[in-house]
Amino acid sequence: MATLKVPAHAPPSSEDAEQLRKAFEGWGTNEQMIIDILAYRNAAQRISIRKTYHEAYGEDLLKSLEKELSSDFERVVLLFTLDPAERDAHLVNEATKKPSSSSWVIMEVACARSSKELHYAKKYYHSRYKKSLEEDVAHHFSGDYRKFLVPLVSAYRYEGDEVNLSLAKSEAKILHEKISHKHYNDEEVIRILSTRSRAQLNATFNQYNSSVGNDISKDLKPESKDEFLKLMRDAIKCLTTPEDYFEKVLRQAINRIGTDDSAIIRVVATRAEVDMVRIKEAYQRRNSVLLEKAIAGDTSGDYKRMLLALIGAGDV
Amino acid sequence: MATLKVPAHAPPSSEDAEQLRKAFEGWGTNEQMIIDILAYRNAAQRISIRKTYHEAYGEDLLKSLEKELSSDFERVVLLFTLDPAERDAHLVNEATKKPSSSSWVIMEVACARSSKELHYAKKYYHSRYKKSLEEDVAHHFSGDYRKFLVPLVSAYRYEGDEVNLSLAKSEAKILHEKISHKHYNDEEVIRILSTRSRAQLNATFNQYNSSVGNDISKDLKPESKDEFLKLMRDAIKCLTTPEDYFEKVLRQAINRIGTDDSAIIRVVATRAEVDMVRIKEAYQRRNSVLLEKAIAGDTSGDYKRMLLALIGAGDV
Repeated sequence: MATLKVPAHAPPSSEDAEQLRKAFEGWGTNEQMIIDILAYRNAAQRISIRKTYHEAYGEDLLKSLEKELSSDFERVVLLFTLDPAERDAHLVNEATKKPSSSSWVIMEVACARSSKELHYAKKYYHSRYKKSLEEDVAHHFSGDYRKFLVPLVSAYRYEGDEVNLSLAKSEAKILHEKISHKHYNDEEVIRILSTRSRAQLNATFNQYNSSVGNDISKDLKPESKDEFLKLMRDAIKCLTTPEDYFEKVLRQAINRIGTDDSAIIRVVATRAEVDMVRIKEAYQRRNSVLLEKAIAGDTSGDYKRMLLALIGAGDV
Repeated sequence: MATLKVPAHAPPSSEDAEQLRKAFEGWGTNEQMIIDILAYRNAAQRISIRKTYHEAYGEDLLKSLEKELSSDFERVVLLFTLDPAERDAHLVNEATKKPSSSSWVIMEVACARSSKELHYAKKYYHSRYKKSLEEDVAHHFSGDYRKFLVPLVSAYRYEGDEVNLSLAKSEAKILHEKISHKHYNDEEVIRILSTRSRAQLNATFNQYNSSVGNDISKDLKPESKDEFLKLMRDAIKCLTTPEDYFEKVLRQAINRIGTDDSAIIRVVATRAEVDMVRIKEAYQRRNSVLLEKAIAGDTSGDYKRMLLALIGAGDV
């Protein structure tokens, strides 16, 4: 469930576009107006506003926002305003130009989107970057990361509920065998994680749990701080319980010394319209504090107001 | 260019459906009528006939055809009548249940279809088999074949003409390095072949040719009869000059002792509506004989008549 609140009778997009233009004009920018409009419109409405704005003023709304805003507030407004497919393509493209930690962004786009959404991101990537998303990921990463991330982003998983129990049993066995020999990057492990449907994977992990006696994630806990294994565990979490995965990203981003704003922005901008209600529930369960309180305590100004509006707590 | 001939004023699909029903009734089947209708209708018309037939007689046209026809004639009629996405899904599914030689079918579907067509095949696969195409390919094959075929079928290649020349140079160098050390199945080789666009690959192979002094395919010629290398060479051919690839499949199917009918049927049914004109030209250039003559000499009866109709030589 989304936290995004859209007024029952939103103004026509021409009016929104006009108000936004006014917010950019004159002395200083009217940030509150930008929040009041963009943080309360769904993807279809934002596309329509952008189209109308372009027709009326001959400039992409995103470009105008870029000129007027700055820093974290700019980033969250821009990222949220983008159409989801465009946003995912942008996140992946950005990640393929950065060092290692960016592998989490790629994994998230691969594991937390529906097959259709991931396909749309790839389609958009073609038209925008004149390349394929997979070739950029394959070219940028190497070693274990490439071996794992390329199949993940290439997947077009089946999304039905049907489960093959005997297959779940045999693949749980394969996973246990490989993991107990520390062959974490074995091609069978990667094949199973990157091609099977979420329902099938759930069945496999349940089989693993009942036959081995503990969760597969526990067996993927490295003695040393192995980043690749952490990515693998997070991918499993992201595929099976995305709300718990995103709760963890937010928790770590908020709790660390020096807030990780780029992670907060990414999670809020990509999940506000999807499952932020569940993520907030997971956050409160795990941290005994409301997510809006935690975010309000770590951020400030227009940036804070935008984040709170998106997670449905605009008046905190 | 397609060889398929569609009459300028094809009858409405209700009339076609009725005529087909008549062809099935009474003493014996009217095979000529089946050819006269199905071999002269495009994909959209065939879908419409199938739909109308089902509504009128409560049975899938494919089921009726299966009951009435047999052997190679049955196979070519059924395969051609299928919608292209359905046909590709069917071919791949069939191939994942057979021994090794079936890897060629998978490679063909991966390399000779547009990104959109391949995506439609995957979508159809979900709805028909309640699994993903990739998971079945990944599960069925192992070793080098899996390593190569899974990325190939997972690809969603960019299809524009834009070429990055410096990238072509550097990747031609990588290919030459790996191939000269006989590391044919190296992950870099597979990454390049499975993710780059056809235009980019062409540029890379041209660079290879001009810097190494010979074609990449020549360097992939194994001393021994290595089937995997043959598959790799064929994939390169299929990606860059599909008409030459299909000419070769037809030539080998016709020339071998005991015609390989399943290969002839597959090529004719999948290419009649796509590029059979070019394949015929390539065939004549290479063999100094018309493809229709060669096929007529190796086949007979209704099967022969259906093949010839599809390659635009119905009256030979």
